[in-house]
Amino acid sequence: MLITTGGSEALMLACLSILDPYTEVIIPEPYYPNYTTFVHMAGGGIRALPTNAEEGFRYAVRERIESLITKNTRAIMITNPGNPTGVVLTQEEMRMIADVAKEHNLYLISDEVYREFCYGDGDGVPTMGRFRDIDENLIIIDSVSKQFSACGARVGCVITKNKELQHALLKFCQSRLAVATIDQIGATALYTVDADYYRKCREEYRKRRDLVVEQLQKIPGVMVQKPMGAFYIMAGLPVDDADKFQKWLLEEFDDNGDTVMFAPGAPFYETPGKGINEVRIAYVLEEEKLVRAMELLEIGIRTYRKDIMKVQEI
Amino acid sequence: MLITTGGSEALMLACLSILDPYTEVIIPEPYYPNYTTFVHMAGGGIRALPTNAEEGFRYAVRERIESLITKNTRAIMITNPGNPTGVVLTQEEMRMIADVAKEHNLYLISDEVYREFCYGDGDGVPTMGRFRDIDENLIIIDSVSKQFSACGARVGCVITKNKELQHALLKFCQSRLAVATIDQIGATALYTVDADYYRKCREEYRKRRDLVVEQLQKIPGVMVQKPMGAFYIMAGLPVDDADKFQKWLLEEFDDNGDTVMFAPGAPFYETPGKGINEVRIAYVLEEEKLVRAMELLEIGIRTYRKDIMKVQEI
Repeated sequence: MLITTGGSEALMLACLSILDPYTEVIIPEPYYPNYTTFVHMAGGGIRALPTNAEEGFRYAVRERIESLITKNTRAIMITNPGNPTGVVLTQEEMRMIADVAKEHNLYLISDEVYREFCYGDGDGVPTMGRFRDIDENLIIIDSVSKQFSACGARVGCVITKNKELQHALLKFCQSRLAVATIDQIGATALYTVDADYYRKCREEYRKRRDLVVEQLQKIPGVMVQKPMGAFYIMAGLPVDDADKFQKWLLEEFDDNGDTVMFAPGAPFYETPGKGINEVRIAYVLEEEKLVRAMELLEIGIRTYRKDIMKVQEI
Repeated sequence: MLITTGGSEALMLACLSILDPYTEVIIPEPYYPNYTTFVHMAGGGIRALPTNAEEGFRYAVRERIESLITKNTRAIMITNPGNPTGVVLTQEEMRMIADVAKEHNLYLISDEVYREFCYGDGDGVPTMGRFRDIDENLIIIDSVSKQFSACGARVGCVITKNKELQHALLKFCQSRLAVATIDQIGATALYTVDADYYRKCREEYRKRRDLVVEQLQKIPGVMVQKPMGAFYIMAGLPVDDADKFQKWLLEEFDDNGDTVMFAPGAPFYETPGKGINEVRIAYVLEEEKLVRAMELLEIGIRTYRKDIMKVQEI
């Protein structure tokens, strides 16, 4: 376990340690857009594993993953629970992905920074680390940012049992000397919280998720499924272009001085043209603010469709 | 000016922004060994500009620099004042290097983290930033680590007026999100010190330098010149191998329970076989500790030559 400047540096060092020019990483799309920079930084490319909203963005299908493996494939990279989709893999799906990595001699980069945010019953905290037969393949990414709402501390880590990889990662870590000292001391204290802290967080976020999903389902034309983890919802909106709609919301729309902001969906996709009408909603605000945000989204969509798209009500 | 996680990240992002596989960077050797990782990380290679102890490690000779420029050369990288040599460029030398970069259309990475540690009279604080005709070529690296003895804060910056480069650097910065928040706030306060702080630091370090050089010159067989900046001295010792001597000092030698540590010289060189009997001494301790350290070095050399090298006194 090597401490890094946030999960970001952990991802960057993992990519630099395992990728060479022209190698590829298989990543289910939509995915966290900064993965692109980390992979490209190391000279690699992304082979997107397509998913779709109708299937709830689920990607763990052996045939689909294996169809993307070539002689240049170096790794499979997943975020579990998923950003932006909130998808949580089942134990069977995790085992299958571990098997694929092992059978094809690939690294498996498992970004588990949302690990504590799972809303299913009794599944426990999901980690690829439990499959000890893939110790040589596995790289786990973790961070204090989400678990402790401490993203400004920039403390994360990269974890692997692979000795050769430890050696490469350590070289990169030594070359940039250290992670900020005060923040490491602070982060150490964060890990002294008891299980109750995680339980309360999970309950609070589950309530927020239920509230946002319920509100979204009331808006005509919005396509949404209830995600089982992280604190994001990827929703399809009845607009022509979510990016254009977002700019309009920020620059031209207001309701009693308020407006609403989300992350337009297209940058989460590698495949051009996908996610144009999708948005990632982060339910990280208090409940009353989320209620108002959803109200603003509803008014915004209605007004935008009438005034800008010039279409009839659905 | 983009804030980075120490000067290290500033160097890394500069390399990633300007280098491609098979491109080269000209660096005077001996140089800070971590430069190797940052250049290699971006797929580039180092073309060492050789210097030697007899000439006081001075490297600013136009013909020598130009003889190393090829079609693959992308940048010249200097540390001024130098680590490990303490070399401070004259205004004329700085101007010449700026001219070479401009004429050959190269980037000039000027690592100025030791800028405030100059012991000459009246030259002021040296920065390549004063040559405004090389705005498109120049990348300045800075940090709070040395100026404020705050290396654990990990706050530095990369500075350029080149718009295209700013755009590339910003992309990398955005992808890793931010520098630790508390440390940035603290660093801001550091910059409120007045000129007297820098003057006192300079005087303190000048005294330490004079003391160490004077003590070193008393040890038979030690080759040393008085460096004009930073807080390092690169000295040649009358031993067969400085790395072996260091290990012996740590593992087998003691004088009343004390021993002494330095940085063996070879890793500061790209050229194999150079610097074997050289060491980098950092005069960052209080005076009485430095006196004792030099005493230990003298006893250590004498004992090592007699017991291990089996040679007569010089």
